Amino acid sequence: MTLQIPISPVVDIHTHMYPPEYISILSSRDTIPLVRTFPSSPDPRLILLESEIPSLELALTDPTAPLPGRPLTKSFTSLPAKLAFMSRHNITTSVLSLANPWLDFLPPDEAGATAHEINTSFESMCASEPGRLYFFGTLPLTAPLETILASITHLTTLPHCRGIILGTSGLGSGLDDPSLLPIFSALATSTLPIFLHPHYGLPNAVYGPRSAAGEYGHVLPLALGFPMETTIAVARMFLAGVFDAVPELRMILAHSGGTLPFLAGRIESCVLHDAALVGKMGGKEGKRRRTVWEVLREQVYLDAVIYSEVGLKAAVEAGGGADRLMFGTDHPFFPPVGVEGGGEDGVWESVGLNVQAVDKALGEGSEEARMVMGGNAVRVLRLFE
Amino acid sequence: MTLQIPISPVVDIHTHMYPPEYISILSSRDTIPLVRTFPSSPDPRLILLESEIPSLELALTDPTAPLPGRPLTKSFTSLPAKLAFMSRHNITTSVLSLANPWLDFLPPDEAGATAHEINTSFESMCASEPGRLYFFGTLPLTAPLETILASITHLTTLPHCRGIILGTSGLGSGLDDPSLLPIFSALATSTLPIFLHPHYGLPNAVYGPRSAAGEYGHVLPLALGFPMETTIAVARMFLAGVFDAVPELRMILAHSGGTLPFLAGRIESCVLHDAALVGKMGGKEGKRRRTVWEVLREQVYLDAVIYSEVGLKAAVEAGGGADRLMFGTDHPFFPPVGVEGGGEDGVWESVGLNVQAVDKALGEGSEEARMVMGGNAVRVLRLFE
Repeated sequence: MTLQIPISPVVDIHTHMYPPEYISILSSRDTIPLVRTFPSSPDPRLILLESEIPSLELALTDPTAPLPGRPLTKSFTSLPAKLAFMSRHNITTSVLSLANPWLDFLPPDEAGATAHEINTSFESMCASEPGRLYFFGTLPLTAPLETILASITHLTTLPHCRGIILGTSGLGSGLDDPSLLPIFSALATSTLPIFLHPHYGLPNAVYGPRSAAGEYGHVLPLALGFPMETTIAVARMFLAGVFDAVPELRMILAHSGGTLPFLAGRIESCVLHDAALVGKMGGKEGKRRRTVWEVLREQVYLDAVIYSEVGLKAAVEAGGGADRLMFGTDHPFFPPVGVEGGGEDGVWESVGLNVQAVDKALGEGSEEARMVMGGNAVRVLRLFE
Repeated sequence: MTLQIPISPVVDIHTHMYPPEYISILSSRDTIPLVRTFPSSPDPRLILLESEIPSLELALTDPTAPLPGRPLTKSFTSLPAKLAFMSRHNITTSVLSLANPWLDFLPPDEAGATAHEINTSFESMCASEPGRLYFFGTLPLTAPLETILASITHLTTLPHCRGIILGTSGLGSGLDDPSLLPIFSALATSTLPIFLHPHYGLPNAVYGPRSAAGEYGHVLPLALGFPMETTIAVARMFLAGVFDAVPELRMILAHSGGTLPFLAGRIESCVLHDAALVGKMGGKEGKRRRTVWEVLREQVYLDAVIYSEVGLKAAVEAGGGADRLMFGTDHPFFPPVGVEGGGEDGVWESVGLNVQAVDKALGEGSEEARMVMGGNAVRVLRLFE
């Protein structure tokens, strides 16, 4: 099929779905992640974060307690709801991904088949809406290496797959684990970039007793824990030399790199002031060490989910220009509040904040803004080909 | 004494010292923080971070193991060394502060007297070099409230004291602890701003096994843990309404606010999407909720210890202009490497990186650069008065 390429497409590269197969798995579980129904809630509740466990335990014994997690509305599960959201916000094309925590929690012997099922489900959704939908696949990371590699091979046969979404735990001990190198190499060879996304956050204790008591909602784990998790994961890859070991590897970092644009200078300075580390990181075969800035500008892309002009400018500058940043919405998370039923059928302020940030930082209608809003995604992810 | 006010002073507001009284305390301790001597090291070693415990334990049993912590050179303890460093880097005036972890670890009955001793020691140093030295005092936070308040009163009698340095633990459970409000109020009434500085970082586990094995030096706790600790501490204060409760409180945040300039948009969006929280934060007596941006521009200053043009620009923009940012060096941490003896008598690259960031972001010699390099500190901290 030949597709008409839109002139100024708006591409959302950060937009999640839970297909029905995945919801069944979550509903059958007793530990997080899980889905639960409560008499006082019209929708089932989705409980993902460790920080939500205290409120889950409370709600299971006290029917008047505030409900844990968030409502699992149609925005999380329904393709028509996704398409309606896209139309309402002038989004030409979405690159869907399974939302966290992906398949990280599955038993090793189930993960391969489940990944096949989920990835096939995404491919069917995308095929039903040519030019409007692509997806990032999901890997069965708890399975044996050969199963993971077979899953990558499967993804290369799916015409709408444009990369994979990955959490920070890898095979269980982070993305600086050398056992991941064959997987990173297979992804690089298959031209499948990694969309790196947080899930595990930081240990609850860092947010203090008032946060644990629910006084601040989910603000601290989501606003700070998520970005710091991404930053730590990428910094570990950088320090371990993963980017040098797999030079064709490409990463797209969620939430504008967590905090990487702001902290890259501090990371670089800390490396520079550690003689032993600089020696170790000298690069292979006599090559000089690449700085974190060089890695950012050669192997890393960022999404533009940052909700501010200040952050967006830093993200652009960290990448050396506007050609490494790609618009995203984080739908269906952060629905409008204060409207009956969550207002998910209306205009989403969370989307508006991110569009505004691009317009303010780069100039509404400018060539650079158009690149961030869609042009970069078309080029980097080879859309409409 | 009337002081000649320099025309374009360079003021270093982030520069630490350990007076001799403090070194004696650290040397007598068996748990971190502590100072230890090793046969293979010309200088005693200073061990501050939880992440340094494994290498400390190894070094105590294996004389060939790498040494833990960092060398406690004259740069940490000697006033002539500090003054020589200042002259070498064209720093007109330094606002000294005790380095972390301050007095956080002292028994309650010792803390008050030790604070008095340490603050008096800083005052004597400053008095010996009129116009060149001021200081941030240290509070005995483990002591009873009346002792802490008496310590604030003592600080108001010391002519060179311009604020206090504070860690993130407060009275033990963070800076959103309501028990701190009388202390914050007393500081506000005394026009003593808080210089907020990290120490505790994040739990080691977040950095993974390779970092724990020492493969990455101290890079992750220092480059990422420190800034995230500061960000979490201030976000907790914001969510708890501390800035509204004590509107005259002024904070100066170390390391350009940790990650706050980059993440303020995400914090604001997460608050905005939590209806219950927005209701609670509605402000007192019918006032509307202030955004994190407003708090940043009304009650917060940042130092310029960020080591990059990208970060510095974001820090300036987060504050709504260049009048809320103040140059700092973080001396004596991050001495030059690769030179015999650490090169502490030479030119410090860490200083150069921060000067360069200001020059590149704001224009070398521009009025804005002059404000960040010293003018703002003179105004905000009432220097040369």
